[in-house]
Amino acid sequence: MKVLVLGGDGFCGWPTSLHLSDIGHDVTIVDNLSRREIDLELEVESLTPIRPIGERIRVWKELTGNEIDYVHLDLAREYDRLEALLRETQPDAIVHFGEQRAAPYSMRNATAKRYTVDNNVTGTHNVLCAIVQSGLDIALVHLGTMGVYGYGWSGSAPIPEGYLTVKVPTPDGDIEREILHPANPGSVYHLTKTLDQLLFAFYCANDQVRVTDLHQGIVWGTQTPQTALDERLINRFDYDGDYGTVLNRFLMQAAIGHPLTVHGTGGQTRAFIHIRDTVRCIQIALENPPERGDKPKVFNQVTETHRVRELAELISKITGAEIANLPNPRREAAENELNVSREHFLELGLNPTRLSEGLLEESRDVAVKYRDRADTTKIIARSVWRQGMETSPDLVKPQ
Amino acid sequence: MKVLVLGGDGFCGWPTSLHLSDIGHDVTIVDNLSRREIDLELEVESLTPIRPIGERIRVWKELTGNEIDYVHLDLAREYDRLEALLRETQPDAIVHFGEQRAAPYSMRNATAKRYTVDNNVTGTHNVLCAIVQSGLDIALVHLGTMGVYGYGWSGSAPIPEGYLTVKVPTPDGDIEREILHPANPGSVYHLTKTLDQLLFAFYCANDQVRVTDLHQGIVWGTQTPQTALDERLINRFDYDGDYGTVLNRFLMQAAIGHPLTVHGTGGQTRAFIHIRDTVRCIQIALENPPERGDKPKVFNQVTETHRVRELAELISKITGAEIANLPNPRREAAENELNVSREHFLELGLNPTRLSEGLLEESRDVAVKYRDRADTTKIIARSVWRQGMETSPDLVKPQ
Repeated sequence: MKVLVLGGDGFCGWPTSLHLSDIGHDVTIVDNLSRREIDLELEVESLTPIRPIGERIRVWKELTGNEIDYVHLDLAREYDRLEALLRETQPDAIVHFGEQRAAPYSMRNATAKRYTVDNNVTGTHNVLCAIVQSGLDIALVHLGTMGVYGYGWSGSAPIPEGYLTVKVPTPDGDIEREILHPANPGSVYHLTKTLDQLLFAFYCANDQVRVTDLHQGIVWGTQTPQTALDERLINRFDYDGDYGTVLNRFLMQAAIGHPLTVHGTGGQTRAFIHIRDTVRCIQIALENPPERGDKPKVFNQVTETHRVRELAELISKITGAEIANLPNPRREAAENELNVSREHFLELGLNPTRLSEGLLEESRDVAVKYRDRADTTKIIARSVWRQGMETSPDLVKPQ
Repeated sequence: MKVLVLGGDGFCGWPTSLHLSDIGHDVTIVDNLSRREIDLELEVESLTPIRPIGERIRVWKELTGNEIDYVHLDLAREYDRLEALLRETQPDAIVHFGEQRAAPYSMRNATAKRYTVDNNVTGTHNVLCAIVQSGLDIALVHLGTMGVYGYGWSGSAPIPEGYLTVKVPTPDGDIEREILHPANPGSVYHLTKTLDQLLFAFYCANDQVRVTDLHQGIVWGTQTPQTALDERLINRFDYDGDYGTVLNRFLMQAAIGHPLTVHGTGGQTRAFIHIRDTVRCIQIALENPPERGDKPKVFNQVTETHRVRELAELISKITGAEIANLPNPRREAAENELNVSREHFLELGLNPTRLSEGLLEESRDVAVKYRDRADTTKIIARSVWRQGMETSPDLVKPQ
């Protein structure tokens, strides 16, 4: 299968590109390296020493003989080149990771809010337009987020996979209607994924584009079997206040002797998935696309749920790290239940990687190995949802 | 009240600006003249001889002594100037008409689709961002569309004003939830208004912006008491296949002896409002803003509903014009019921202008007076929702 991976240089995109290449697909990475540019802006680097995309691809070919193409292209700003690329490469499928993906960054300031909306919505709409204009039947697999549903909207009822059947009162009694789960985004980033959903629904209905939208939980872990082949293939590891996600952040904090930073009570329940399962889920989604004319197919791409404070306690127990409860910079419920339907991927054969299977140790080892690369002034979350929600000064002074 | 009218040079924006100025508000029009530029692109002009914005404002001052300011500004492309404008002018309210508003134009080609999404979503998001950054408590009144609800989704049940209470099944029985009415947009243009709704919901919740979203029906008529004061104040009258809306289009077609172009069976039921009521509704919305912290306030800005074929028959009866049933270039239901709740504006004192009150004659007189300005090659709708949905060749050859 010929596959374009949009955002194929990023945290999920890179291991996905290698996995798809490894199982025999013909992969072209399309990326504008915006994630590396944002590192420059934030004056921070991946804890792991990621190599330039050209070197990554060269090493992959040396080790496996598999060729991955790479095109530097801005989805939101270079529509004509994108359309031409589809006509030239005639892909069977597109995997779309090409969006700004950090909630805190999206709330950082007006520039970041505007960038996130423009980049994500314009980019995704451009992809849809280009597929229609190409005249090709290209299946699109898009990375959404569990955050489109919000947390706690339906109480203890399971969050369905995309669609909800509700009863609508009418003068003649209730009628049943299937609706897209109501949108309850918690940040500008999450908001853009709710906008994407409406774009997909329209282009599926009007133009019969085939779309799968994957509502992913928080990804943890760093390496997949492919990225672990050689240090020059290593995946990103973000630990900073904007891009670091909770479990990886705790592992890194423990590795450098920094308190584990829990926002609020830590009663937030969130959904998680290991990066190894992310790449398998993408494969499964590619192998099971919807039919032309179908509405968007939605999968919840999560394997387990945990409360943030329970994760902190687990890491504390393993490592001896202290826990610091800081004010929460996010506007969100202090505590919530989370019950997620995840039948689709299980039915299609996903064998989930659990938190208890030693992979915590592997991630911890990565964090320990590269801890000297950490900048302790970048750990505390600085983006706030509203003025006056600042979290804390630095807990550890730079050495 | 200090009011910025975004898109204040357009079909709804201009008469609204004059009405608000007339009742004593301090009005600044913000417009990039994109509507006039699209006329250049489509090689068509308003049937009525509209004057440049500078002349319009000068004449208004000569006749009434009221000053209207004007700022040439692109909402989507000049964010910094927009934010500076809010800080300088410190408006109490913003009326936002600054979006591409024709469904057929939004489906014309990839460029127009992309322009519509970028202009409308980026522009609206910029307005929200700028309000937050200004630190001012500015009430926003936005022109939405009845098209966000779709036609026929809830059968014969009334379309509520924005929100719907539904029953969600859970293991413990049904729970009631109020949701934003599910989005069922029929074009890229309508799609952008469904995206706007999610932007508003987020910024109301996170930043306590005060937003009113007006889901307007199809506007008919041309003049308001203010635009009729002097020919140099005359409002736009669009008759072309992209921007001409159904009732005005029929009146113009009758005036030049062109068959009335009905797409499909004409069984589509749509909601209508006269331009005189549009400007009154905006005034009412400005005078009744939501509180800080409220969700967006939604009004259905419509006064009556009609089937398209009934309107054609009415105009045919008055004028003797023939009716031509053409293939429908839109992907939409051939026939639908439409039952619209419109309690909010009626409660707040709107006295609706009905189709039967002689205003049809006034609009017809406008069409007859300026019929020599019509280009008959621009009448047939040329934008199609999908390839193969073309409507018809020209029915009347150019003279």
